Amino acid sequence: MKLEIVTIGDELLLGFTIDTNAAHMARTLAAAGVSIVRRSTCGDDASDIADAVRAALDRTGAVITTGGLGPTADDMTKPSIAAIFGRAMVRDESIVEALRQRWKDRGWPGELPKANEQQADVPEGARVLHNRHGSAPGIWLEDERGRWVAMLPGVPREMRGMLDDTILPILRERGLGDTVVRSRTLRTTGISESMLADSLAEAKREVNGLPLAYLPGWEGVDLRLTSRGLDTTRADAALKEGITYLRGVVGDYAYGEDTQDLATIVLERCRARGIRIAVAESCTGGMLGQRLTAVPGSSDVFLGGVIAYENTVKSKLLSIRAATIAEHGAVSEEVARAMATQVKLLLGADVGVGITGVAGPGGGTPEKPVGTVWIAADLGGNVKARKLSLIGDRHEIRQRATQAVLDLVRRGISG
Amino acid sequence: MKLEIVTIGDELLLGFTIDTNAAHMARTLAAAGVSIVRRSTCGDDASDIADAVRAALDRTGAVITTGGLGPTADDMTKPSIAAIFGRAMVRDESIVEALRQRWKDRGWPGELPKANEQQADVPEGARVLHNRHGSAPGIWLEDERGRWVAMLPGVPREMRGMLDDTILPILRERGLGDTVVRSRTLRTTGISESMLADSLAEAKREVNGLPLAYLPGWEGVDLRLTSRGLDTTRADAALKEGITYLRGVVGDYAYGEDTQDLATIVLERCRARGIRIAVAESCTGGMLGQRLTAVPGSSDVFLGGVIAYENTVKSKLLSIRAATIAEHGAVSEEVARAMATQVKLLLGADVGVGITGVAGPGGGTPEKPVGTVWIAADLGGNVKARKLSLIGDRHEIRQRATQAVLDLVRRGISG
Repeated sequence: MKLEIVTIGDELLLGFTIDTNAAHMARTLAAAGVSIVRRSTCGDDASDIADAVRAALDRTGAVITTGGLGPTADDMTKPSIAAIFGRAMVRDESIVEALRQRWKDRGWPGELPKANEQQADVPEGARVLHNRHGSAPGIWLEDERGRWVAMLPGVPREMRGMLDDTILPILRERGLGDTVVRSRTLRTTGISESMLADSLAEAKREVNGLPLAYLPGWEGVDLRLTSRGLDTTRADAALKEGITYLRGVVGDYAYGEDTQDLATIVLERCRARGIRIAVAESCTGGMLGQRLTAVPGSSDVFLGGVIAYENTVKSKLLSIRAATIAEHGAVSEEVARAMATQVKLLLGADVGVGITGVAGPGGGTPEKPVGTVWIAADLGGNVKARKLSLIGDRHEIRQRATQAVLDLVRRGISG
Repeated sequence: MKLEIVTIGDELLLGFTIDTNAAHMARTLAAAGVSIVRRSTCGDDASDIADAVRAALDRTGAVITTGGLGPTADDMTKPSIAAIFGRAMVRDESIVEALRQRWKDRGWPGELPKANEQQADVPEGARVLHNRHGSAPGIWLEDERGRWVAMLPGVPREMRGMLDDTILPILRERGLGDTVVRSRTLRTTGISESMLADSLAEAKREVNGLPLAYLPGWEGVDLRLTSRGLDTTRADAALKEGITYLRGVVGDYAYGEDTQDLATIVLERCRARGIRIAVAESCTGGMLGQRLTAVPGSSDVFLGGVIAYENTVKSKLLSIRAATIAEHGAVSEEVARAMATQVKLLLGADVGVGITGVAGPGGGTPEKPVGTVWIAADLGGNVKARKLSLIGDRHEIRQRATQAVLDLVRRGISG
């Protein structure tokens, strides 16, 4: 089964909103065996919507749209697509009733606003798709030749719920076939894309007959193998062999697979050994703590820490002598080491981590340019420190610093 | 001038990577007066790339692509588009030389990897676009009828640099015309989309002749007015009037405009009054500190704080009695207030902030379901606390909590 995705909205087209829906939908559908052949985005204009959806229908006969189902006047998806199918719009009183009930159940003030009622307008002959998470129902419209468009809301949580609740079951009923697109990814950090390509030598384009993609980002370079056209069993076996081969070449630069986050990996390693972590952050200002606590259930490993952004806080909370800061600078090996050790002692942790650096855009000097970051990890008294020279803007430098210090901890705790 | 954007890459099409490039490019071009009419994404397949670019060229005659210029074999953009224009690929030795020099200048080990040399292959007759931030040059290919495709790399920093350095100057030379697409946004928080629509009454669809878009997100609801087809002066005047009108209706729910972040607004208000902030974070685990320090130059206002994730840290570092936690629970008004006051005293700040809540997915109870968050701000001894019932997943709940507490501080410090 092939389909196209059309995401609708001026905010997307003009770049005010980043299109996370399309990515989620593509991933979910591809994993289920649907092949996404094209994705397009158009604005909130009735004729643009009709053009984009018509072109997609002509190519594949199967289209999912997101966006433009809200209660406001810039929400044009339903009438534009109804027009392609030659259908009129009719108000569905049962939807109005459900909207009123939902308003009341939530205890929101007053009556359902008039604006919300247009969410009950549906194209004639359409199937209404229940929206567990929001007020706008989805719409499934199909013609006598079996060509269809499914219209989902643009709010990510609502779209995701409806994809799982209604779209995937409908597609499965129609038979998704037994060839799937499957991918597996080996995640590396601390090594560049071209160094990886060179060390993979003649296997650098494909492994085990599967095309190999290099995906660089702030977390490192992901190596992704993709299988298309094999059945599930053969795809899984080929991918497993391919990942094993890559692991052999890449060695300890590999920290995880697929969507595994380095913070999760570090938390798991610590949990298995009863190790508890505390952090002291200067230039990252809480980003490392935020990453560790983004993982549900992190509280059995992560105790907390100190955001020592201003230098006096380094002295007050972490007992780092002002003389040490004056002599070596706040961005120095000495301060990073002291931060790691002091926060470990202060919170009674087993591992303490310190990060201090110049995230920019200001604050760089010839000796310590923007991107200079000292990281340290005190692993039960054994302190490791590293100097990083990071590239990118303020945000990327901070992200890369958290990744490097997590990797320092990972490498310090055997798996 | 109208153009289309085509973003290329299996990782985008399959949803492994979220397409932030397209958004940045659309925003930048729209602001310069270019009209983006469609955006599409295709995979790393030569014929899919050719199809997508050909369709876009047929509609507008002007296309910018991103992606597929890297050193690896899945980078197919240049030959696919050369084929549309009937051009052969030739190796440009001066690019090879520049790549070698760059490798040497960076002090990277050994010689330029062979893999990188294919980045020097260009379509015959193409203009090579310098890439200040990376190894892959961009390509400008144009036919005798003036139809053109500009190929930019997929790495965001590189794409952004080339857009500014080369693409915008070329487009300006060709004359962008004097009608522009301009937008202005009023950012609100703490009020729902439909409540806003109802309070805007008959102005809810357009203001001052400019269409009004409602953009809900975790930060709140943005109200965006867009002007199309007016010249710069008239557009700016109409937008200014429209925003003034909206401010009048929305009142103190409005915290900023355009891309202003609430953290930046709060930092500015504090800076103007010499106020210094400290934070104590439990469920957000450092996210609030990270938001405040994401703003360059925040160190004159933001001192730092305590990540009191585990309950013993609340007692150890913030002197909150275990009995208080036992009696009221860690997620309670009492604990939030104590966190705000204690962190203020500990760091010698003027404003202390406390956040404690149930971010989920686990940990909810009937009395304190997932999404229950207590926030508090101690503003020079005057402590304000609020209970929030937030929706969304763990990440959204944490984001919304940081937004709500920043808004509590904003409302506590007059502008």
